Amino acid sequence: MARIHNFNAGPAAMPLSVLERAQSELLDLGGSGMSVMEMSHRSKEFQAIIDAAEAGIRRLMGVSDDYAVLFLQGGASLQFAMLPMNLRRPGKSADYVDTGSWASKAIKEAKITGAMNMAWSGKSENYCRVPRQNELKLLPDAEYLHICTNETIGGIRWMHFPESSAPLVADMSSEILSRPVDVNRFALIYAGAQKNLGPSGLAIVIIRKDMAERTPDTVPFFLRYSTHIGEGSMYNTPNTWGIYMIKLTCEWVESQGGVEAIQKINETKARRLYEVIDSSDFWRSPVEKESRSIMNIVWRLQSEALEERFLAGAKKEGFVGLKGHRSVGGIRASIYNAVPMESVDALASFMKHFEQQQG
Amino acid sequence: MARIHNFNAGPAAMPLSVLERAQSELLDLGGSGMSVMEMSHRSKEFQAIIDAAEAGIRRLMGVSDDYAVLFLQGGASLQFAMLPMNLRRPGKSADYVDTGSWASKAIKEAKITGAMNMAWSGKSENYCRVPRQNELKLLPDAEYLHICTNETIGGIRWMHFPESSAPLVADMSSEILSRPVDVNRFALIYAGAQKNLGPSGLAIVIIRKDMAERTPDTVPFFLRYSTHIGEGSMYNTPNTWGIYMIKLTCEWVESQGGVEAIQKINETKARRLYEVIDSSDFWRSPVEKESRSIMNIVWRLQSEALEERFLAGAKKEGFVGLKGHRSVGGIRASIYNAVPMESVDALASFMKHFEQQQG
Repeated sequence: MARIHNFNAGPAAMPLSVLERAQSELLDLGGSGMSVMEMSHRSKEFQAIIDAAEAGIRRLMGVSDDYAVLFLQGGASLQFAMLPMNLRRPGKSADYVDTGSWASKAIKEAKITGAMNMAWSGKSENYCRVPRQNELKLLPDAEYLHICTNETIGGIRWMHFPESSAPLVADMSSEILSRPVDVNRFALIYAGAQKNLGPSGLAIVIIRKDMAERTPDTVPFFLRYSTHIGEGSMYNTPNTWGIYMIKLTCEWVESQGGVEAIQKINETKARRLYEVIDSSDFWRSPVEKESRSIMNIVWRLQSEALEERFLAGAKKEGFVGLKGHRSVGGIRASIYNAVPMESVDALASFMKHFEQQQG
Repeated sequence: MARIHNFNAGPAAMPLSVLERAQSELLDLGGSGMSVMEMSHRSKEFQAIIDAAEAGIRRLMGVSDDYAVLFLQGGASLQFAMLPMNLRRPGKSADYVDTGSWASKAIKEAKITGAMNMAWSGKSENYCRVPRQNELKLLPDAEYLHICTNETIGGIRWMHFPESSAPLVADMSSEILSRPVDVNRFALIYAGAQKNLGPSGLAIVIIRKDMAERTPDTVPFFLRYSTHIGEGSMYNTPNTWGIYMIKLTCEWVESQGGVEAIQKINETKARRLYEVIDSSDFWRSPVEKESRSIMNIVWRLQSEALEERFLAGAKKEGFVGLKGHRSVGGIRASIYNAVPMESVDALASFMKHFEQQQG
């Protein structure tokens, strides 16, 4: 079986050893005579799995007992709605920074249910960078400050997170577990699973427990963080398969040496591509250097016709997922934790080869 | 590998051939060089999977084009909240019938966001039956009438659905695809997947399209049915693995002869257990005969001590999931579509044997 070079933006490449383990256990998990998908979420066996997944996240990210780690359905998109419903009390406002498509989606939901303050927007600059601290127009009494730490579509990221007196809330969907993060700087971190954690269909939420006490009692029980904290993510039947896959993925990250070791590999992978992009005028990065993502590398060629030729050639060579998001065009290589160095090397070589051919 | 006799209430037994297929394709779906979990939800390959899953549901249940078929995250529990947010306009009320644990959960959420009318409650009778038509106290102008057609915990079901001038809305989580249903009698049907459809982590919603036009614009986009109808269940990244498993499960139901054939098998399976239960005073069904579920068979023994002995003996013999829900105690065998006749036969034999032993 030939594995393809998978640069999908999410759902995305998963570690081969994780997939092989899941395959080998699919009919019979640990001698239970059942698939993990057939187990009651109330069984001792599954409780051990969700406990291990939570412990893995806590260990890898250094999450203290002041925080709850939740496995919720609905991906980051449900969090866009739940956040303001839970954390922004009636009559109050929240700061949002607009760094691109995903931050904008969070903002769109926040506007529906109350007031928000646009602390900064990169829209007029085509989302080519994150703001500097002194550009942020923060409210003195915001309920929280929301950022998206890595924009999957624009390929930009916050190298350093902003300072604010308001609690900091972050969408880390496309970079969680890719680099060490000081969780204590955040009141809430959330991430859709389908990039660095596991399959699509769930999100993890790391929430400082006191933040869950603000929720107005007009919010449905299912949409309250306190509900899920109180029931250990089992208020309702969780996505058991997804949680099992997150457990396996955490084990894999640990086997790689943890998040710091993964970061070094990720930086090497990203550098490999940025070096090709910066090596000639044939390629162009639309992102300011200090804001460049190490997960989603975006670039342009000199014309859309040339980009199409590049994509067609790449497809023939077994590269998948390189087309930029339909909203912005261009090329994008998503190189999450599970994308092996060999795939990145192969892509860099293909780029060099393509450039020479066009010469 | 020995497969266990799995009577879990959900997540629950899945068809062996479905699991085997999923296992064989896990690393490489159809020669793509990727797992289905690694595919972009925007790819042609995944679009074909979700289209096939939808077509399967439409064919098996006879769903017309007047309805949308959605694959949403959050299980039935999110539907408890979304239903009143979407279908009950400000200042209006909705009828709910309280037939047990699951209906009660829907009612609990409905009360948070507006007015509801308790059209009937079986609570004072320990939820031993569904109501007769003339017992329902329906509002003249209810926005909808909500029922749970099969109560997983109480083991009761609506053999015949109620008449009402208000649109009929039904939670069919624990019996969908177990018997033919005239979808046209319903304005909305929803079901968590983890019983008869696939793994946990998603729900299907079958909604008459005009019902999605009522939603107040104070509802977050993610929580609007219209959002998901407009985007073909791909407003955000769906649970791609779960949808793939639903596709395989629909194919399996078709291979069994469709829902009518499955119903016959289900009725035979249920009869096998009810015959044992009714055969002597050793066992007792708490459910009135006309309301008995064919999916969740509940029964009692003469004492809790005896019930514990029964459960311990059953466990030793390789039966899983027979303990009644902690809220009601007793014994419960969930015999969803995928539970093979052999498992039911084995359980019936074990019951006979246990009864003789105690004699």
